[in-house]
Amino acid sequence: MSKNLTTRSEDYSKWYNELVVKADLAENSGVRGCMVIKPYGYAIWEKMQAELDRMFKETGHQNAYFPLFVPKSMFEAEEKNAEGFAKECAIVTHYRLKNDPDRPGKLMVDPNAKLEEELIVRPTSEAIIWSTYKGWVQSYRDLPLLINQWANVVRWEMRTRLFLRTAEFLWQEGHTAHATKAEAIEESEKMMHVYAEFAENFMAIPVIKGFKTETERFAGAEETYCIEALMQDGKALQAGTSHFLGQNFAKAFDVKFANAEGKQEHVWGTSWGVSTRLMGALVMTHSDDKGLVLPPNLAPIQVVIVPIHRTDEQLEEISTVVADLVSQFKKLKIAVKYDDRTTQKPGFKFNEYELKGVPIRIAVGPKDLENGTFEVARRDTLTKEVVSKDGIVTYINDLLAQIQIDLFDKALNYRDTHITEVNSFDEFKQVLEAKGGFVSAHWDGTAATEEKIKDLTKATIRCIPLDRVEEAGSCVFTGAESVGRVLFAKAY
Amino acid sequence: MSKNLTTRSEDYSKWYNELVVKADLAENSGVRGCMVIKPYGYAIWEKMQAELDRMFKETGHQNAYFPLFVPKSMFEAEEKNAEGFAKECAIVTHYRLKNDPDRPGKLMVDPNAKLEEELIVRPTSEAIIWSTYKGWVQSYRDLPLLINQWANVVRWEMRTRLFLRTAEFLWQEGHTAHATKAEAIEESEKMMHVYAEFAENFMAIPVIKGFKTETERFAGAEETYCIEALMQDGKALQAGTSHFLGQNFAKAFDVKFANAEGKQEHVWGTSWGVSTRLMGALVMTHSDDKGLVLPPNLAPIQVVIVPIHRTDEQLEEISTVVADLVSQFKKLKIAVKYDDRTTQKPGFKFNEYELKGVPIRIAVGPKDLENGTFEVARRDTLTKEVVSKDGIVTYINDLLAQIQIDLFDKALNYRDTHITEVNSFDEFKQVLEAKGGFVSAHWDGTAATEEKIKDLTKATIRCIPLDRVEEAGSCVFTGAESVGRVLFAKAY
Repeated sequence: MSKNLTTRSEDYSKWYNELVVKADLAENSGVRGCMVIKPYGYAIWEKMQAELDRMFKETGHQNAYFPLFVPKSMFEAEEKNAEGFAKECAIVTHYRLKNDPDRPGKLMVDPNAKLEEELIVRPTSEAIIWSTYKGWVQSYRDLPLLINQWANVVRWEMRTRLFLRTAEFLWQEGHTAHATKAEAIEESEKMMHVYAEFAENFMAIPVIKGFKTETERFAGAEETYCIEALMQDGKALQAGTSHFLGQNFAKAFDVKFANAEGKQEHVWGTSWGVSTRLMGALVMTHSDDKGLVLPPNLAPIQVVIVPIHRTDEQLEEISTVVADLVSQFKKLKIAVKYDDRTTQKPGFKFNEYELKGVPIRIAVGPKDLENGTFEVARRDTLTKEVVSKDGIVTYINDLLAQIQIDLFDKALNYRDTHITEVNSFDEFKQVLEAKGGFVSAHWDGTAATEEKIKDLTKATIRCIPLDRVEEAGSCVFTGAESVGRVLFAKAY
Repeated sequence: MSKNLTTRSEDYSKWYNELVVKADLAENSGVRGCMVIKPYGYAIWEKMQAELDRMFKETGHQNAYFPLFVPKSMFEAEEKNAEGFAKECAIVTHYRLKNDPDRPGKLMVDPNAKLEEELIVRPTSEAIIWSTYKGWVQSYRDLPLLINQWANVVRWEMRTRLFLRTAEFLWQEGHTAHATKAEAIEESEKMMHVYAEFAENFMAIPVIKGFKTETERFAGAEETYCIEALMQDGKALQAGTSHFLGQNFAKAFDVKFANAEGKQEHVWGTSWGVSTRLMGALVMTHSDDKGLVLPPNLAPIQVVIVPIHRTDEQLEEISTVVADLVSQFKKLKIAVKYDDRTTQKPGFKFNEYELKGVPIRIAVGPKDLENGTFEVARRDTLTKEVVSKDGIVTYINDLLAQIQIDLFDKALNYRDTHITEVNSFDEFKQVLEAKGGFVSAHWDGTAATEEKIKDLTKATIRCIPLDRVEEAGSCVFTGAESVGRVLFAKAY
């Protein structure tokens, strides 16, 4: 299994594609650009969903569900947003198939079943949701609306990659409406922080919080906040965005409220989302040439136990000891699997769980039974230890926590050693090519310069970091004045 | 609020439509036939999902996700299934909008972006899933595949009603593959029992388990098992189906496995699903002229506490007592809400929670503080009691369990008194019109008779009950031989 995996140094991109398939996370489907998320991959996504959902609810949000389709005219209402998404969407034009008279057993689109108005399969739901909010908001007492939706969306991407860029993907999209500008800005910032907390504490991925330049902003937003992560190949990945929408959608859809003085005002909005793209980030941040490495907080199986035996009698003895261990793990809510399949050899199983990134593997053989020990192997470090059965449960519980921390620290160390300050464009290009990562440079603030740098180097401004220091300087490309550094990188 | 609700006796259908909207469950959207599920409605759906998901996982199933779109050719592969769904589906024909040169600011479908092959928005996922299973199954060791998907599906219904029949709806669809016929049949029966258990224990809806006649069977299935519920207006509602697919999809998509002897065989399949339609069943089974009545096991708010006060000081005193109560409820995982809004009067709140079906309302006023009591009101019986604060938590916890039982018993009593055995067609028609409910009658087993009865009375065969007794008789319509009774009803 894992021996067939292309290594990262051979071909990072190929390594990723192979790993996603071999580790049973996802595969391409018979539908162009759409993926099948396999049970093991979906189990990780479910854990992500559960944590995010909990965090959204703790911050006062409720879930709801809005239609898959957006009528074309509704989509047109917010011009910039329509422009931004018009290039890439699936369009429903008919509503019936009929038997094809020329090809027995085959179906054809019934030309008599043409829709009066085409329906767009939602690429994002601002339009449909704001057209609904119009009916929900009359007075300041109806605000804020703090709503989230878990849904599928479709963007007609030409070049797709599993999880990273697919025509259909799963995501959550929060859409909130507020009485004041300050409150809406606070909400969009809050959700960026929620995303960062999730990325760091559950995915073990350090992220840089910041905001996007106008060029990179969400179509229809006044400000886009983001969290940016760094993959092992030195490319950045946008892991989540949160948009302050100003009154743009409220104006487009005429969503007004009577304030405490009875005066009509337009509502202020935000939207924010993360998607199954996070699965790609998770894979690329931690995994190695042997396969997936999963952080314990998101691993569907945290501990796997493999018996090493020659005889049925040995297996029985091992199973008795393991049964007790399993029940103790379960009490601590540790997700444990005892793999007592007799159709596969231990070596096969070891490879399988390495490939699938199970954080801890426990092996038990007759020798261990005699000695009262277990062999404990860490997936992240590929190290083994013999651990006494006394206190093994606490040991494993602590080790899971330690692995979570170690994965984050390792990724943080990589990220921090891959932020390079440069002061000339030559240096910029050299660092970008030789080392990759984030290049911290002065920029004159114009879209023209941003565009030229992108054309020349493929690097984009990932974000203007939230915590950047004010620092007078001159643009690395034009030499014009700059008030602080921004982060450039090649990106997924 | 609730005083504006049409009563059931005035117009049951109107009562339902109004109630769904007024209780904040759902509303029609700006997209024909598609609904918006509002936060309160979605919270109930989430509770249903959580329980069902737990039950599916306990019976060995895993979740996965398959594409929204089905290419037309893939859809055609299983002929009966394609025929059955071809009449009503949304079809994507293009993948890009462009600026309309004739209408500034407007968009048009780009005629150059026509898909080579049309994509059907899934009305159900057998085709896409079985085309995937082909790649997942080689040997008997790969079986069974026990997979479920939570997803949205689209069926182009002409006449829609919130939850009961919408163009887009949410559902789960299980799709399993097995090595033997017996195992597949066992699976489809098992899932029918799971659905029945869920309906009865969580929704408090008694159901009849049975199987469908050939006419009413799922397109592409060899047997359709179902659970049938009875609404308060005497109409039946199919609350869940589970299909034994035989080898139909395996043959259509060439899904074979090597058995233990190394011989190639086609796989045996099942599929099973329940949808947001269950929300409609929940509303129609228990609710009354004052609004929703929710079973405690699915109520987003199980207990609401309303303070009765004149002064801020009184409110403060009440809030202190309530804070303690709330924390005790939370320890028992009782979903409690303390509504201390000062913008609304208690009477307004009482109406609101009655309309929204909160099972228990606790009111606390200054007199209660003096006496150490609470006023406890049951939503289902509309009765009130004064309860001492000693032991109130246990009292409420027990009462929630009792309400759950009482709701089921009430619905069961209604259902059981609305199953009428008839022995002539006159009697059949008379019972159907005068009383409604299930009409238990002998049937000659032919589709022709079934069809004629439907034309004449609008009643269909809801199911052949699983537990029916063998009983020789003559068909209520043709007089031909029959081996047992089946259940007819008008249905949603």
